[in-house]
Formats: sequence, structure tokens, C-alpha cells
Amino acid sequence: MEKIKTAIVGYGNIGQYALQAVGAAEDFELVGVVRHNLNGEMPKELCGVCVVDDVDKLPVKPQVVLLCLPTRSVEENAKKYLAKGINTVDSFDIHKKIWDLRCSLDEAAKASGAVSVISAGWDPGSDSVVRTLLEACAPKGITDTNFGPGMSMGHSVAAKSKEGVKNALSMTIPLGTGIHRRNVYIELEESFDFETAKRSILEDDYFKHDETHVIAVDSVAALMDKGHGVNLVRKGVSGTTDNQLFEFNMKINNPALTSQIMVACARATMNQKPGCYVMPQLPVMDLLPGTLEDKIRRLV
Amino acid sequence: MEKIKTAIVGYGNIGQYALQAVGAAEDFELVGVVRHNLNGEMPKELCGVCVVDDVDKLPVKPQVVLLCLPTRSVEENAKKYLAKGINTVDSFDIHKKIWDLRCSLDEAAKASGAVSVISAGWDPGSDSVVRTLLEACAPKGITDTNFGPGMSMGHSVAAKSKEGVKNALSMTIPLGTGIHRRNVYIELEESFDFETAKRSILEDDYFKHDETHVIAVDSVAALMDKGHGVNLVRKGVSGTTDNQLFEFNMKINNPALTSQIMVACARATMNQKPGCYVMPQLPVMDLLPGTLEDKIRRLV
Repeated sequence: MEKIKTAIVGYGNIGQYALQAVGAAEDFELVGVVRHNLNGEMPKELCGVCVVDDVDKLPVKPQVVLLCLPTRSVEENAKKYLAKGINTVDSFDIHKKIWDLRCSLDEAAKASGAVSVISAGWDPGSDSVVRTLLEACAPKGITDTNFGPGMSMGHSVAAKSKEGVKNALSMTIPLGTGIHRRNVYIELEESFDFETAKRSILEDDYFKHDETHVIAVDSVAALMDKGHGVNLVRKGVSGTTDNQLFEFNMKINNPALTSQIMVACARATMNQKPGCYVMPQLPVMDLLPGTLEDKIRRLV
Repeated sequence: MEKIKTAIVGYGNIGQYALQAVGAAEDFELVGVVRHNLNGEMPKELCGVCVVDDVDKLPVKPQVVLLCLPTRSVEENAKKYLAKGINTVDSFDIHKKIWDLRCSLDEAAKASGAVSVISAGWDPGSDSVVRTLLEACAPKGITDTNFGPGMSMGHSVAAKSKEGVKNALSMTIPLGTGIHRRNVYIELEESFDFETAKRSILEDDYFKHDETHVIAVDSVAALMDKGHGVNLVRKGVSGTTDNQLFEFNMKINNPALTSQIMVACARATMNQKPGCYVMPQLPVMDLLPGTLEDKIRRLV
């Protein structure tokens, strides 16, 4: 079997788990890791892996790259790889900007005959597939997506940026019907006033629309946990029949699931026509290895 | 907007709900109902609907037909419509024979440039999409599909076929980890011995592998309810991270959901290349009406 030649671009939280997910996928071959900064110590799990600062320095050209980069740098980087005819997968997560990114990368992908799958994580991502499926099952009704309990990266970074805050963890707590509480654990710089730090967090646009509790702790590191969850609920109408009830729940390690989904979408890029896709545009069958016959017999 | 011209073929349990689902879908136009037997009273909800015993007698040729027929007559009927260049959707539900049906109808569909979506219900159907998606999220692990509580058509028919049994209802009760109990309610013919009827049910291949309880009642009709349910659970591994937990639950009116999914798949036939598909081969986006931009902004 011809393996799918893949490179991981970026080696932060997601990149580290992507290394494991690619390693566990028998139909993939890791051709290398691209890190924009090669200074500093090499993590021991990268021993034996080709690590470069430019994809062109890899001995084997990848067919697809997993862009394990901050969301705001996805577009620029994806265009660079697509222009080389390399498929891209990212987990871009700013919901309101997904359509614009899709249009921009669709043009770039088509220009070079490549395929891009964007927002390939769990939300946006697999949750989007479930939301779409449930709307097909019951076209009228309300879907609520309840997140957590789990760490919000964006909110944690916002809290940490405040004066006097050495480290911060913002937990998203689901209150049901799509409403969330924020529990923000902060570690203060020595002798900094708690009430001042608390006030600056509560006034931030990230927090001022939700119920937010700020809690001082001695060590934020001691609270860190990569677990997250979702409770996605739809109550709706099939045809003219009310009260159709659907629920999807997950309790997962966040970067492990995100990177696993990126690998599945990298596989799916091999079967799509040139262009840019979000996950609900992909046949879910294409996310899995194996023959169509095996998959239909086993899963349908 | 050009509406999708649809006919309903068969007017039993599913056909009646399909009439409601097509009526509720603004992008569909019902061109008629095909019933193989036009004798007997006309149901009042068909007043104003063109009802014929042959699709060629409809004043407008449908682009797609919903085959609301017994599973065992699906293949023959689908081929007849596909040969006319009409797309077909069915809810064929014998899991072990889906691959063979797919191959047979794929050939028929391609020969005439038509599209067929088979096994478009909830299991097989939307559950198959969820099972496939969850395997992509956690490639190693076990998925258990727990059905019910709800009526099993096949088991009810089997129980009803026994000597002395006037009417029967077999309820599927989930015991977890994919194991089910059968509670079989039977209405006996006058003075027929309960123990004799019970024994013949327990010896039937439909029942002898499961925990089965046979219960005599005065009226089976008084117990009938179209509600059903699913609890689909996967515990698995993403990359090298164990204990990733997923769960999908539904409590639904069975024929209402089945026929709604058939309508969604009929919509999707309009966007596929000629051939035969199961639901996990369709992009879930294609199940919904509306522009791609609207759907991405709203659901991803």
C-alpha cells in the first residue's frame, strides 16, 4: 500500500499529539516536522524524525501537511503550501471567519490543483458534522452546543494578559441551553492586589457577557488538565412530528482528539477534487482507511 | 427556485409520514403517490394528491422517488425507477445485505445516469454516519449500538406468525453494551393455550439468542406506540490517548424520522455523480437546503 506522505508544521500542543496520531495511522508516513524556529532543545520524541525549518529542505515532498499553528497564522501558511501543490489541513477555530477563510483558500487550492480542509477539529469540526446531520433529521428546532467543563485557550490567554497576572486558566462550565459560566483561576505576581486583577478581567470583552468567577490560586500549573467535553442537544420536528430528541456527548483529551481528526481529514484530502472544504462537506467514509466494502459491511 | 419533483412510492407506515415530510420541505414539490393497489378507500390526506398505480401515469415525471416499500421489494423496484433515469431513495434495513444491494444498484444507476441512496433511515442511516465519524475520532476502540425501548417490526411479525397468536408486539429493550432483551406482548386467539404460543416464540430463531419474555395481554393495539430510541456509545483511542468517550442518544418517532431522512437524502441525490450511495458516502451538507455560505456560517 502506498502510504500518505505527511509533514507536521508547528510543534506546540497540537503538533505533539499529531506526531502520535500520524504514528498510530498505518496508512501514513511521516516525512518530517517543520518548525519555524530550530533553536532550543530538541524534544526527545523527535529523535529520528527529520526536523527542518522549511518544507523544501525535507528529503521527501509531503502530499499533505498538518498545520498545527496558531489560528491567526493559518491562512498565510496554508497559501504557501497550497501554492506548492501540497494539500493542507488546519484546525482554524474562529467560527465567524470560517466562510472567508474557505473562500480565500478555495481559490488558492484550485489554482494549484490541491485540496485544503479547514477547521478540522471538534468544534468547529466533528461537532459541525453532528449539527448538520441533526438538522437533516429534524429540520425545525433548536440546537444547543454546551461546552466543557474544560479549558478555554482564548479566555485563558486573555486573563493572563492582565497586569499582575502571572498565569491564568479559564474553565468553561456548561449551564445548559448554550449558556456558559467562566471560572478563571489566576496566579498573581507577588503582592499584586487581587481585586484589581479581578476587576480588569471582569471588564474584558472576553468575560463581560458571561457569568464569570475569578479565583486566586497558588499554582495554575497544578490545575492544568487537557480534558474537555461537549453536550450537543437538538429538539426538533421531523416532517410534522414534534419532540424529536437528539443528544451528542463527548468527554475527551482536547489536543489528542483535534490532532486525530486532522489526520482523518488529511486522509480525506486524497479523495477530493481541488478546492477548500469544511468537514460537513466531506463524506465521513473518506475519513477512514480501508476498502469501501469493508467500511460498509462494518459500519453501515 | 426550481423545486425537486418527487413521488412517494408505497403508502404504508413510512409513506404516510413521507407525505408530511415532503409537504414540510419548501424545496420539494410532490408530483404524486404511486400505490400498487388502488382499490379500497382513499385516505383523506391524499385528497388533492395525484395517486396512480404506475409512475408513467403521473402528469409530471419525478426527478426522485421515495421508495416507502417493504425492504425485500426495494431492489426490484429501485431498478425499475433507475432504468427510467429517476433517482431513488429507500430505507432498506437488512444490514448484512447492504453491500450487495449497493453493488447491484450502483450498476443500475450508472447505466442510466441516475443516483440511488440506499438504507436511508436511522439505523442503517444516520447512526451509520455517527459510527463512522466516531471511528475517525478514535480509530481504536469499541462502538456499542443500543436500541430502544421501541418496537421491532421484524420480531413483531415473527411472533404474530405463530399459531394461536392474533396480534403481537415485540419491544426491544437495551441492556447496554449492545445486548438487548425482547419483551413480546401477545394477544391470543380465543382459548388458545398461552404456554404453547410462548414456547413456539421462544424456539424461533428471531428470539432464541436473546433474553426473551412473553407476556399475554388483552389488546396489543392498546400498547402500540411509534416511539423508538438509540444509545450509541464509543470508548476509544485518539492517537495514543485512551479513554476518549463519545455518546449519541435519540428518542424519536420512528417513521417520522425515517421518512424525514429519506427526504434529506432525496435532496442529496441532486448533487451526486451517477451511482449508488449509503449515507456515510454523502457529504452531510448535501442533506440540507440553502446556500453553502449560509450553511457554513450557521452550522460550522
